[in-house]
Amino acid sequence: MANSHNPSGEDSLIARYFKPLATDPGAFGLVDDAAILRSSGEDIVVTTDAVVEGVHYLADDPPGTIARKALRVNLSDLAAKGAVPAGFVLTLALRSKEDIWLRPFADALGEDAKAFACPLLGGDTVSTPGPQMISITAFGRVPQGRMVGRTGAKPGDRILVTGTIGDAALGLDVLKGGVIAQALASDLHAREMLTSRYRVPQPRNALALAVREHATAAMDVSDGLAGDLTKLCAASGVSAIIEVASVPLSAAAASLVARNAVGIEMPLAGGDDYEVLCTVPAARSDALVTAGRAAGIAVTAIGTIVEGSERPRFLDSQGKELALKRLSYSHF
Amino acid sequence: MANSHNPSGEDSLIARYFKPLATDPGAFGLVDDAAILRSSGEDIVVTTDAVVEGVHYLADDPPGTIARKALRVNLSDLAAKGAVPAGFVLTLALRSKEDIWLRPFADALGEDAKAFACPLLGGDTVSTPGPQMISITAFGRVPQGRMVGRTGAKPGDRILVTGTIGDAALGLDVLKGGVIAQALASDLHAREMLTSRYRVPQPRNALALAVREHATAAMDVSDGLAGDLTKLCAASGVSAIIEVASVPLSAAAASLVARNAVGIEMPLAGGDDYEVLCTVPAARSDALVTAGRAAGIAVTAIGTIVEGSERPRFLDSQGKELALKRLSYSHF
Repeated sequence: MANSHNPSGEDSLIARYFKPLATDPGAFGLVDDAAILRSSGEDIVVTTDAVVEGVHYLADDPPGTIARKALRVNLSDLAAKGAVPAGFVLTLALRSKEDIWLRPFADALGEDAKAFACPLLGGDTVSTPGPQMISITAFGRVPQGRMVGRTGAKPGDRILVTGTIGDAALGLDVLKGGVIAQALASDLHAREMLTSRYRVPQPRNALALAVREHATAAMDVSDGLAGDLTKLCAASGVSAIIEVASVPLSAAAASLVARNAVGIEMPLAGGDDYEVLCTVPAARSDALVTAGRAAGIAVTAIGTIVEGSERPRFLDSQGKELALKRLSYSHF
Repeated sequence: MANSHNPSGEDSLIARYFKPLATDPGAFGLVDDAAILRSSGEDIVVTTDAVVEGVHYLADDPPGTIARKALRVNLSDLAAKGAVPAGFVLTLALRSKEDIWLRPFADALGEDAKAFACPLLGGDTVSTPGPQMISITAFGRVPQGRMVGRTGAKPGDRILVTGTIGDAALGLDVLKGGVIAQALASDLHAREMLTSRYRVPQPRNALALAVREHATAAMDVSDGLAGDLTKLCAASGVSAIIEVASVPLSAAAASLVARNAVGIEMPLAGGDDYEVLCTVPAARSDALVTAGRAAGIAVTAIGTIVEGSERPRFLDSQGKELALKRLSYSHF
């Protein structure tokens, strides 16, 4: 752990809260400024994602869910790349170092680090008078040259997605007291399911080896399915057709769309899903679905890669193209 | 680069400013969420350090010096660990994305990335309404098991430090218009030297191989020589005696101390030096000094490791112990 400017204050904070998470020998119990990631010739996959108070989580979100989200958005990247987690480093920009916030934060982070076999290797804590921010850089391992990129999608590939799409964006609306909160005023269960999908993503690391085995291209859906698919297609030099009726929705989301409480655009363009989006040769599509079933993860085919450079087309059940006004959820 | 929530806005920002820095094939031109760090069995050294506006740099510091400092504080850690830079990932928390700030920031970052052979591998940009923050995780390589830690200092080892100590803390005082600014009111040259030492550290990567070759323990001095030596000794289970008259000061700092414009405590405890502090068996001390000379880096012996668990003692030229009221510069 780097010691940004009060050795006594920060050192005791690190020892008290974060040392128990540093189970890897390469972390040196956090007494050094640096950590070691051992490698025996495989590729190290590196990904970095930050979450900011008021942008990626809400100031009154429970500290434990903030910790889990900060780590899981990175674990989700590793899953989509076909990588096995190896560890992470953490930068915490905090306004205060109160036990009532840090204790549940560190406990939940430790639980997830253990559950996903992704130990803390080091980090830095700094003070900020502004919004809190948690920046994590996570590491994974793949055999040499086997990281699943974005550029390999081929015409004819099927497009698959894990889990359900759009719940997190609906959950954020619930937390903000928007139209969805009103539409679900009498349905506590649905409100809780959707908000927990926003607060605590479910990264699909259990599917990582199957993604590496079968996918020609993959990424995680963080900024909205429509926008992220557009990026994947651009990187691969292809286009796509999505059968909107096939896009997997939770019962709550499907009901909201059926009641016209929300347009289909919101799940398609809403962010924070952290599901895996991948392209798979048609002949192997079933194999990935089967691997998902074995891992307890729904995998759904939602469309096909086609030649071309135009934006992906989203077709309704009559084959009519939907004109999406936006593709992604936009903060920046 | 991860895309935090406005694909079009962020993607174009990345392409315009940061893609030219992503010269390593493992960066995939920043089109992916993840990067690859190739390894052929050596250890990957990982270090992470963030700089925060108003804490580690001042809001009106030139964007170019902010960029250099953000990268160099991490390069300094790699140098002290005996590691050769391999690349870095960047998280930018910005209030605005104005060209007038980002252009010189990215240009200077690119120059340093090239000069230190440490290419950009990926990153994340997020928006913040609060102070800006730059968090960097940097990677280096060492042969397996050869990272220089903090725990190997042995009684009898000489204590060596690179460059000069205390200039950055004095420079920060100048920038804040403190007592040093007044004491140097008529000496523009000294003011500029000291402020540039605060704004742009000189990481000692040219000495990394010699540190790996000779040092039993090492760290970079970021929080003040006295406090950082105390940490190194605690990690090694030893104590130390420092000959204060041997601590290398710049002419400007030495003059300020001689005039009693500032006590010796300020250079000894002031932060932001980013020099290498290391312990070396007495018989090899000269070899490290010689290696420094070859690399154009002053290396000075300032004391000796001794048995014991008490805090290091700082002796004046009469052998009398100085009572330091503080050991480190404290922000957190």
